[in-house]
Amino acid sequence: MPATRSGRVRIDAPVRAFGLRASYRLSCGHLGEAVSLASAIAREQTVEAPPGVGGDRLQARMLGRIERIEPSHGEGWLARIAYPLDATTTELTQVLNVAYGNVSLMDGVRLVGLEPAPAVLRSLPGPRFGITGIRSLVNAPARPLVSAAIKPIGLSSGGLAHQAAAFARAGVDVVKDDHGLAVQGSAPFAERTRVIAEAVAGANAAVGGHTAYFPNVTGPLDTLEERLERVVALGLGGVVLCPGLMGLDALRCVAAGPRALAVMAHPAHAQTAPGRAQGVAPDVLLGTLYRVAGADIVVYVNAGGRFSWPEETCHAVNRRLREPMVPLRRALPAPAGGVNAAEAGHWFARYGPDTMLLIGGSLLVQRDLEGAARRLVEAAVRQEEGNR
Amino acid sequence: MPATRSGRVRIDAPVRAFGLRASYRLSCGHLGEAVSLASAIAREQTVEAPPGVGGDRLQARMLGRIERIEPSHGEGWLARIAYPLDATTTELTQVLNVAYGNVSLMDGVRLVGLEPAPAVLRSLPGPRFGITGIRSLVNAPARPLVSAAIKPIGLSSGGLAHQAAAFARAGVDVVKDDHGLAVQGSAPFAERTRVIAEAVAGANAAVGGHTAYFPNVTGPLDTLEERLERVVALGLGGVVLCPGLMGLDALRCVAAGPRALAVMAHPAHAQTAPGRAQGVAPDVLLGTLYRVAGADIVVYVNAGGRFSWPEETCHAVNRRLREPMVPLRRALPAPAGGVNAAEAGHWFARYGPDTMLLIGGSLLVQRDLEGAARRLVEAAVRQEEGNR
Repeated sequence: MPATRSGRVRIDAPVRAFGLRASYRLSCGHLGEAVSLASAIAREQTVEAPPGVGGDRLQARMLGRIERIEPSHGEGWLARIAYPLDATTTELTQVLNVAYGNVSLMDGVRLVGLEPAPAVLRSLPGPRFGITGIRSLVNAPARPLVSAAIKPIGLSSGGLAHQAAAFARAGVDVVKDDHGLAVQGSAPFAERTRVIAEAVAGANAAVGGHTAYFPNVTGPLDTLEERLERVVALGLGGVVLCPGLMGLDALRCVAAGPRALAVMAHPAHAQTAPGRAQGVAPDVLLGTLYRVAGADIVVYVNAGGRFSWPEETCHAVNRRLREPMVPLRRALPAPAGGVNAAEAGHWFARYGPDTMLLIGGSLLVQRDLEGAARRLVEAAVRQEEGNR
Repeated sequence: MPATRSGRVRIDAPVRAFGLRASYRLSCGHLGEAVSLASAIAREQTVEAPPGVGGDRLQARMLGRIERIEPSHGEGWLARIAYPLDATTTELTQVLNVAYGNVSLMDGVRLVGLEPAPAVLRSLPGPRFGITGIRSLVNAPARPLVSAAIKPIGLSSGGLAHQAAAFARAGVDVVKDDHGLAVQGSAPFAERTRVIAEAVAGANAAVGGHTAYFPNVTGPLDTLEERLERVVALGLGGVVLCPGLMGLDALRCVAAGPRALAVMAHPAHAQTAPGRAQGVAPDVLLGTLYRVAGADIVVYVNAGGRFSWPEETCHAVNRRLREPMVPLRRALPAPAGGVNAAEAGHWFARYGPDTMLLIGGSLLVQRDLEGAARRLVEAAVRQEEGNR
C-alpha cells in the first residue's frame, strides 16, 4: 500500500469480515516510512511471507488492511489495521498473536487501540460478574468500593488472617491476598486460604458484614483447577490472578470455566507503562484485553503512588473497563500501588463510584488496623452520601 | 541500603538461601539514585510494604539483598539483587514474579541477568531433549540443523502438506507449522496435523529421511492437553509453542508433562528487543527463561532479517542457551525472521554447528521448493565437512 503520487495515503479495500481492528503508534518521521511500516505490520501479523507465497488471492484474503494513517499528536503516526476474521479466528491466543505477535519484537511499534469484532466478543467470556455482580457480592449497590491487601509474604497464615479479620470487621468489601503469596512455607495455599476464609467468615458473622476474601491462585497452570476447586469448597466468591505471569488465556479459562468465581486481575509482569514507544498501552492491555478475557476487577497503578503513572493513564484504563462493549459486562477499575488511605475521598471523587480503591501498605503501617480500615470504608460511604 | 558517607555502596548482608539473583539495568544518573531505586526494587518484588509491616525480622528474612551496584558502560547502573528462596519458592510463576513482576510497570528498570539457584533449577524441567536429543531425533549427530516453516495461514491442509513433503524429501531436519496456524477453517488443527504428518512420513519413507514435523499447539490452555495427545497419537516428536501467547508456564507444563515431546519455543508476543530501557533483555528471556522452562529449541530474530536486531544480541541468546547450567540440558538456538537461505553458510559459520537455522519465506518464494531446500541442507552438510 504505497502512498499515491499526491502524497495522500491510499486506503486498502475493506475487509469483508474483520476479526479485529488494531491501532498502532509508529515512531516514524515521514508519512512514507509510516506507510511502509504499516504495510510490513499488516503482512508480518498475518501471512508472514513475501508476496506471492500461497497465491495472490489467498494473500488478498488474509492480509491485514490499512484503514487509516494519521499524525499522532506530533509523535510519529497512528495506523489502524483491520485483520480478517479468517486470520484472527475467535481464539484469544490467536487474536493476541495477530494484534501484537511478532511486531512485539520490533522497535517503534506500539499497540494503542484494539477493537475486537462482534464475532470475537461473542466468543470470549468477558466479566462473569461485572460491576453489578461485584456490587451484589459485597452488598454495596451504589458507593465506591474498597479492597485491602493482606501481606507481606513470609507472614504466617494466622498473621494474615488477623489482618483479614480486622479488615472484615471494618467493612472492607474485598480482602485480597498479596499477589506474591504463592506456596511459601510460611503460609501454604491450602492452609492459608482455609484459615483466612474462616477468619473473614467469623468477622462477617460478628458484625453482619459482607466482606469477600479473594485468594491468589497465581501459580503453576497444572495446579489451577485444584486451587479453584479449593476456593469454591471454602465458599469464597472470587480469586486474584496475574495474567502477566500465567498468560492472558488463564484468565479466560477461569472466567469461562464452570465455577462462578469473580476474578481480580493483577498486573504483575504485565510489562506495560505509559509513554513508551513500544509494548501494549496500559488502557489496551489492562482495559480492553483484561476485560475481554474475563476480569471483573482490574488492579492497576494509580497516579501519585509508588509508580509514576500520570492520572490521564488511569482515566484511560477506567474508560476502557467501563465503556459499552456489547455483549460484555463492564469491569471495575481498582487503582492501587501505593494509594494513601487518607486520600481515598480524593480518588473516589476523581474516578466516580464505580471504582474499587485497593490499599495495602498505608493501612498496614497503622497501629489500629481496624480503625484505619473503618475510616477508609467511611470515606466510601460519605462519597455515596455526597452524591445523593 | 543507603550509600555510605564515603560515597561507596554498602552491600547488604548476604542471603542465607537465595532463590535467584537478578541483575537490572537502571536508567539513573547518579549512584545515589541507583541505590534508592535498587532498594525500592528489592522491597517491591518481595514484601511490597513499608518498613515494619509484618515485623523487622520477617522483612529482614524476605527482602531482596543488593549484592552489587556498578556503572553500566556509561548508560546508568547495573544492580544485582539476590532474592531469598523463601520469597521466590521454586514455582516458575513466582520466580518470574520476583524477578520482574511489579517493576515491569516502572520505567527505567530492565532485567538483564538472571541466575536461578540450584534448588530452583532442580525443580524446573529445562529441555527434555536438549541439543543432543534433537540431534538424535533427526539423525544429525554433528552438522548444523535446518528447519523450514510451512505457511501462510489461509492455505489448505493439502497445500501445507505439499510444502512439508518437499522439505522432507530435501532432508530438512524439522518442518514446523507457522506460529499463526491455529484453528483457521482453511486448515483446522486435527485435519492439518494428520495430513501433514502423513505427507512427511511418506516422504521420509520414500527417501530414507528423518524429517520431524512439529505442529503448532499454541491455542487455548484448556485445549492444550487434547492437542498434545493428538500429536503423540500421530507419532510426532515435537511441537511449536509460543510462551508469550500462552504463558511461560505453559511451556513448563509441556516440558515437565508425561509426553516425550520436544518443544520449539516461538517468540510471538514475547515483547523483547535489544536496546530498550525496560523489559526483559532478549538473552535473559529467550535464553535463560525459555531454557529453564523447558524449550529444546528457541526461535529468535536473526540479525540481517526483517527485524533490526544486532548480531551481538543473537550471540548473547545463543550463549545463554548453550552455557553450562547444571543440571539442565543445553538448548538449540534457532535464528529466524527473514533469514535468506542463500546466506545459510555464513550463519552456520558465525553461530557454529549447534544451531538450527529456521527459514520460511526465502524458501517458499522459490519455484522449485524441494531444490531450494536441498541446497539449504547441502550448505549444512558442507559446513560439517568443512569442520572436519
